[in-house]
Amino acid sequence: MKVEIIAVGSELLLGQITNTNATFISSRLAEIGLDVYYQTVVGDNPMRLEEAIAIAEDRADILIFSGGLGPTKDDMTKETIARHVGLPLESDANALAYIQDFFKRSAREMSENNKKQALVLQGSTVLANRTGMAPGMAVEKNGHHYLLLPGPPHELQPMFEDEAIPYLLRASGKQEIIVSRVLKFYGIGEAELEHRIQEVLETQTNPTVAPLATPEAVTLRITAKAETIDRANELIDPIEQQIHNLVGEYIYGTNNDTLSSKAAELLLAKGYSIAAAESLTAGMFLADLANEPGISDVLLGGVVVYNADVKSEQLQIDKQLLEQYGVVSKECAIALASSVRRRFHADFGVGITGAAGPTGHDGEPAGTVWIAIAFHDEEPATYKLMLSGLRNANRLRAARFALYYLIQQLSEK
Amino acid sequence: MKVEIIAVGSELLLGQITNTNATFISSRLAEIGLDVYYQTVVGDNPMRLEEAIAIAEDRADILIFSGGLGPTKDDMTKETIARHVGLPLESDANALAYIQDFFKRSAREMSENNKKQALVLQGSTVLANRTGMAPGMAVEKNGHHYLLLPGPPHELQPMFEDEAIPYLLRASGKQEIIVSRVLKFYGIGEAELEHRIQEVLETQTNPTVAPLATPEAVTLRITAKAETIDRANELIDPIEQQIHNLVGEYIYGTNNDTLSSKAAELLLAKGYSIAAAESLTAGMFLADLANEPGISDVLLGGVVVYNADVKSEQLQIDKQLLEQYGVVSKECAIALASSVRRRFHADFGVGITGAAGPTGHDGEPAGTVWIAIAFHDEEPATYKLMLSGLRNANRLRAARFALYYLIQQLSEK
Repeated sequence: MKVEIIAVGSELLLGQITNTNATFISSRLAEIGLDVYYQTVVGDNPMRLEEAIAIAEDRADILIFSGGLGPTKDDMTKETIARHVGLPLESDANALAYIQDFFKRSAREMSENNKKQALVLQGSTVLANRTGMAPGMAVEKNGHHYLLLPGPPHELQPMFEDEAIPYLLRASGKQEIIVSRVLKFYGIGEAELEHRIQEVLETQTNPTVAPLATPEAVTLRITAKAETIDRANELIDPIEQQIHNLVGEYIYGTNNDTLSSKAAELLLAKGYSIAAAESLTAGMFLADLANEPGISDVLLGGVVVYNADVKSEQLQIDKQLLEQYGVVSKECAIALASSVRRRFHADFGVGITGAAGPTGHDGEPAGTVWIAIAFHDEEPATYKLMLSGLRNANRLRAARFALYYLIQQLSEK
Repeated sequence: MKVEIIAVGSELLLGQITNTNATFISSRLAEIGLDVYYQTVVGDNPMRLEEAIAIAEDRADILIFSGGLGPTKDDMTKETIARHVGLPLESDANALAYIQDFFKRSAREMSENNKKQALVLQGSTVLANRTGMAPGMAVEKNGHHYLLLPGPPHELQPMFEDEAIPYLLRASGKQEIIVSRVLKFYGIGEAELEHRIQEVLETQTNPTVAPLATPEAVTLRITAKAETIDRANELIDPIEQQIHNLVGEYIYGTNNDTLSSKAAELLLAKGYSIAAAESLTAGMFLADLANEPGISDVLLGGVVVYNADVKSEQLQIDKQLLEQYGVVSKECAIALASSVRRRFHADFGVGITGAAGPTGHDGEPAGTVWIAIAFHDEEPATYKLMLSGLRNANRLRAARFALYYLIQQLSEK
């Protein structure tokens, strides 16, 4: 069965609020396996709402409305649907008692308008509102289901979970379970990733494999439909393995893992302490790693050596080395990593130096970054990036690449 | 002229992301006086997109699309519109050169897919993308205007401001000029701000005054309509003055000012150097200040002393002081600020210490933060925060409050 979500409210069309209700409803419907083909937003205007309803009836079986159930004259979702589908509005005794009780408890005056909120479409299943006054409702008429939900998210969400989902499962006769697993990538672009796993993308129907780029990472979502969770996971496992075989070196985690949470998890699991010396990132790497609760057991601290002279003075880096190779160099990154590791008595030392932009630095073009990771007295690992973004995008990517390389180093220790 | 906003992307229908682009576009259109009657979301499906276009053409004059301009095969907004309106796609030389240059600078391989991003509808006004690769475009055909914008908000927003709004003003024949000035606040909540300036909010029609809370700041946008820019500014000036009189102490800047850009601007203008010692924020304060180009003239660096023992060792802070007052104390913040200032030979030294959460630290409840700002040998200014958010929200707010207090200190020097 196909679903259309219709949000009613002029404040949405004026850009005063964002339609997060559509996001919430859509994500929950995806989980129970109901397909949303359209989301529509329409203002507090009966004529335009009625046109939107007519269009939705042509292309969906279930129409879910949010908003317009309040007491003011702008609120006319119920009235418009009643007229359109030809069902009268009736006062619901339970809803009216609940509203009257609400006013009694809050010692406020109940207005005539509030009685309007107890009106429901004849024959509806009333959806109780345990965080507000306006009841929701669900009704079937002429082969379509109409669900009416309140606009405020704190009212809509519990009503949707507790009342609307059971109604929808009954209405759609769903038996299937949907399970998703998200793989997270770094160091590879969305287009390149799709190219490398083309055969998987093209052949899969259940599970499906869908790419999604977020600001933090490129991800793949593997989604299986099955009768049980175990069976769904059995469908997902071989596909995940196939993707690992093709592009495993770029996968840093799954589901809610972030680069910093994964790095923190590995540091804590292995009991390795860490310190960092940051130049262009100026603290981003350390601040990001410190996102994770419990990290203070292993994150000792570090030094931000933003200004050039400061590098030699604060970290006792040989001035001759800086003059010979420049501050944007492999040698400088190694010196930063090794020096900060020793100074903080850490297992790992990370050094990040580079030219963020807009101009180059010390003879190197903007976007050049060197990262070094020192572990005990081993030869430090080094990495060079040539980034092409704006100044702050380059800084952010340098910090994230440093986390990504740290995860790789940690996986091998 | 009526506008419909059509967002294209299955990830919206799956509830994986929220349609914040519609909010942004709608709010800007409201300011320039164009009416949005519908917002529609449709998946990456050419047939359903084409149906949505046909419906929108019946009820709007201007169709604004977001999303589906990327390099993958899911991205098919351009192709579908081209077919529907009967305009061929042509490679745009400037866009192609820009994309090729992007790949050359990043030393990455350009795939065939990326060439697709340089295709535009014949006869289009190309809308430059200065924060990403895919160009936008605007074209008129059969009495309708079609604007195609990229999906990522950090690409869409600057393109909309710089390229789409001028096009829309021309297309709609608006003679009026719209001038907006945004006042930026920190340290005051949206509800409190609205309450304090109630008389201004209630009486204004031209200019209008509208509050808007963003994650970074609470803002007020003053928008005037007039025949010339000068006349619009003349309307705005007295209202800005009135707001300054009521809540001026919370205003840190205007328009595109951020806390870090304003702090950097003042440091650079006055020629004062700065260093910081960060505990719970672990580098956020320095990283944020380093956002600003040119900052290396005054930002020397600093120390992240995340782990407790590290504080005394790295900054020679008296162990007895830490034992007596604890690390979450005014005394510790002053010691951090003074020590890092001396060690980096800076004019300003900033010290930030506290308990981010989820648990308290050193006898202080989660959310307790002390900030000290030392200037030369003057008595350091100190500030205490009691934050109530989650761990990382508290860390972020601590770093931002430190910038806000630094701006206040700088304004007085």
